[in-house]
Amino acid sequence: MNFMQNALDLAKIALDIGEVPVACVIVKDGQIIGEGHNLTTLMKNATMHCEFIAVKDAKSRNPEISFQDAILYVTCEPCIMCAEFLSLICIKKVYFGCYNQKFGGNGSILNLHEGKYESIGGIYQEEAVNLLRIFYEKGNPNAPPHKRHRVLGK
Amino acid sequence: MNFMQNALDLAKIALDIGEVPVACVIVKDGQIIGEGHNLTTLMKNATMHCEFIAVKDAKSRNPEISFQDAILYVTCEPCIMCAEFLSLICIKKVYFGCYNQKFGGNGSILNLHEGKYESIGGIYQEEAVNLLRIFYEKGNPNAPPHKRHRVLGK
Repeated sequence: MNFMQNALDLAKIALDIGEVPVACVIVKDGQIIGEGHNLTTLMKNATMHCEFIAVKDAKSRNPEISFQDAILYVTCEPCIMCAEFLSLICIKKVYFGCYNQKFGGNGSILNLHEGKYESIGGIYQEEAVNLLRIFYEKGNPNAPPHKRHRVLGK
Repeated sequence: MNFMQNALDLAKIALDIGEVPVACVIVKDGQIIGEGHNLTTLMKNATMHCEFIAVKDAKSRNPEISFQDAILYVTCEPCIMCAEFLSLICIKKVYFGCYNQKFGGNGSILNLHEGKYESIGGIYQEEAVNLLRIFYEKGNPNAPPHKRHRVLGK
């Protein structure tokens, strides 16, 4: 089963509702145990990243859940905050789509995963970055004017 | 008004209920707009740091709140995750008590505040670290055995 495709499908839903199209699923024993897409725009909260939402989702399904054997599939490299968050919950492994050249904590800006969890980037990165391109080319109506249109790199 | 004393009072409440004694208040226009102490132990959730709880508290009091003119008083240096979180919410200034030599993101391990917000450490640090010492000397009953007793540095 291709879990990055599940994450991309969630990111497309985010795009459809005017949300930053970044999403993830958390997988354990071959099953999705938590999922989420960004809610930064709709909640007007810069910290509502999909990683926090998916972990909260997993905990709401099973409060005793442990993430030590869990794998995260996320369409964009976790930011510095989320990279450290993933370390704190002791995630086992992260697969991510496109790189996050501005805030990435899994290699692009900092290497917060090193010695903590395995991280592999560039999975379906073209699909992932294309969703972000569509979002930012249209312009984020909820962002401040100078942030409405972003030019995306690699 | 001494807001670090308010944060220390909250940290003492945390200690009394068996929680990691780290707490904070967020101040705007001379008023406390949000507050919280760690809930990592009671919630069995390594990420329930007081900064997230206080911001959530502020947002529950006023969903439209902006933190650009807000000052955080926290008894211990924000960890890497929280340091980046504070940058994302555009906090203006952080005063912290004791240094966090293991996870600190405001100077001890990383300088995530640089260019983002002002950060001044060492305010009432002796009181702040003493609370942590009492907690860890007693031993954290909810921590894994190897983490139950911690030796605290500066």
